[in-house]
Amino acid sequence: MTDLLKTLLPIIEAELQHQIARLDQPRTRPFYEMLTYHMGWSREGSRPDTTGKRIRPILVLLVTSACQSEWLCAMPAAAAVELAHNFSLVHDDIQDNSDKRRGRLTVWKKWGAPMGINVGDALFVISNQAITDLEKYYPSEIALRAARVLHDTCLDLTCGQFLDMSYEKRTGLTVEDYWPMVSGKTAALLAACTHIGALLGGANEEKQEAYRLFGHHLGLAFQVQDDILGIWGDEAMTGKSVASDLVEGKKSLPVLFGLSKQAQFAAHWRPTGITSAQSSQLAAILAAEGAYDYAQNAAREETDKALESLKKAGPLGEAGDVLLALANQLLKRQQ
Amino acid sequence: MTDLLKTLLPIIEAELQHQIARLDQPRTRPFYEMLTYHMGWSREGSRPDTTGKRIRPILVLLVTSACQSEWLCAMPAAAAVELAHNFSLVHDDIQDNSDKRRGRLTVWKKWGAPMGINVGDALFVISNQAITDLEKYYPSEIALRAARVLHDTCLDLTCGQFLDMSYEKRTGLTVEDYWPMVSGKTAALLAACTHIGALLGGANEEKQEAYRLFGHHLGLAFQVQDDILGIWGDEAMTGKSVASDLVEGKKSLPVLFGLSKQAQFAAHWRPTGITSAQSSQLAAILAAEGAYDYAQNAAREETDKALESLKKAGPLGEAGDVLLALANQLLKRQQ
Repeated sequence: MTDLLKTLLPIIEAELQHQIARLDQPRTRPFYEMLTYHMGWSREGSRPDTTGKRIRPILVLLVTSACQSEWLCAMPAAAAVELAHNFSLVHDDIQDNSDKRRGRLTVWKKWGAPMGINVGDALFVISNQAITDLEKYYPSEIALRAARVLHDTCLDLTCGQFLDMSYEKRTGLTVEDYWPMVSGKTAALLAACTHIGALLGGANEEKQEAYRLFGHHLGLAFQVQDDILGIWGDEAMTGKSVASDLVEGKKSLPVLFGLSKQAQFAAHWRPTGITSAQSSQLAAILAAEGAYDYAQNAAREETDKALESLKKAGPLGEAGDVLLALANQLLKRQQ
Repeated sequence: MTDLLKTLLPIIEAELQHQIARLDQPRTRPFYEMLTYHMGWSREGSRPDTTGKRIRPILVLLVTSACQSEWLCAMPAAAAVELAHNFSLVHDDIQDNSDKRRGRLTVWKKWGAPMGINVGDALFVISNQAITDLEKYYPSEIALRAARVLHDTCLDLTCGQFLDMSYEKRTGLTVEDYWPMVSGKTAALLAACTHIGALLGGANEEKQEAYRLFGHHLGLAFQVQDDILGIWGDEAMTGKSVASDLVEGKKSLPVLFGLSKQAQFAAHWRPTGITSAQSSQLAAILAAEGAYDYAQNAAREETDKALESLKKAGPLGEAGDVLLALANQLLKRQQ
């Protein structure tokens, strides 16, 4: 990890703790503790790696700094995007019926769905409160513009979530249906991070748009890579699948590709009831039908677009170098 | 209904429709329709009275106007508070396992809890977007201040909701535990309505505070009245209870009063399993132990405080008259 990231991470964590401390009142202490549990700070299983990687706040701060502006001032926005991300995770876990997150019981599994819904709602509210804290360091109209970007993004999140849930029951989906869903679920918030970072960095409209597109394509590339790993695992094409997306019936890009081919894969795929053993076989069939190459190609295209956009944005200084290195690392490319 | 209210209501409805239309896109149309269903505009059972009374936006607009300022400019804030209210209703219905709202199936009952959570989230996001629309008519710092009031209020809502849910399993509660819960669940949003209305009306700090307190006490008075009706019904003390709060095990003010007395009522009350017939008897016992008088007295006190605060705020013009009439009507008092 670079020195800059080593400096940023504890300050991000402190800002998140400061924001969530709004709930740290005698009457609501157990409620406050549900949030600190989810954030990875308290109770059983909490370790430094249970907090998540804080990629989103890091992106905000690096972009602000790469615009040669003071990153510390952008801290409330960094906290806001991370809180919005965590709000969506808490609700997503209920919606997906997920028992575990980062190796620990999910909030709803621990305290029930009604409390889980409320914890997600509170994280969302605190995200909104955090973004208005930008007013401490920026003119009101800039703070309001950042808030507007965040709110628009959160609407994209709910739309992506709607599409994802509605796809579970839909047949006849094609790869065309994939992009609007992941644009909302994954890319929108990453695009908001780089967009807001540039806005707070004082970048002009054109540069803001280049940074926004960087985040957007980074998110899409990252998601497609995740889809590939979810079916073929890290040891791709070795025939030994350690991945679970086929078992879980997830309609990822390779699956949508395979389903629309209407060949062997489509004949054998089922949303539920596929065993781990069957999934290895099915993954091989899917690769043979061209889905692996198709997805790799899509990931490559999005990666190229992301790096092109970043180049166009022209990040400067140490933060610029770290941003490029981070992008390459996330995109699994060597510089 | 006064002419002023007749003017306001369709414009409120149009603004709400305009805000929610953000989701009216080809891919998300079914999602959009879940929101319009909840708002009472579409599908089975939608009639003018299924929209709710829109008390909250009316309060915002009347207060702005009673400060002798243009109410039309406050319309985005009016929509924002109503959307925040509806977000909390949609999630509340899931948390309370409620099948019906305003005589129609609840969103989660119709489309499942995962979709219901997402519909609530979207209403909340659109509430946030609506409040930033104030920037069209007000300086950015005023729009941001209104947003901050709304966000702080929404955190109060989640705290009230937490307390309400945690009380279900707690014993040893007293009437002291009641006020923080209803302050969050009911009074906070009404206080935000009158506070934001005054802020947008250009009132000074002192007047804003008087209006805020008016909304706060109005909310508390209203809630206590509702608690009384929930146990003894409209035909109070006739012995014929049409109310269901004892059947549903709700820990309302009279119940908390009765439980802390540790007498006859406390010995017979149970959170579940009380029949309608038993509830009439139990309501009579509770009244005999002084809970009815206690709650009536509390409602009267809050009503007095509300009307005192309103007087101090000094509403002007036609809107001022309507505001006073509305307060009296909500508080079941004759002018």
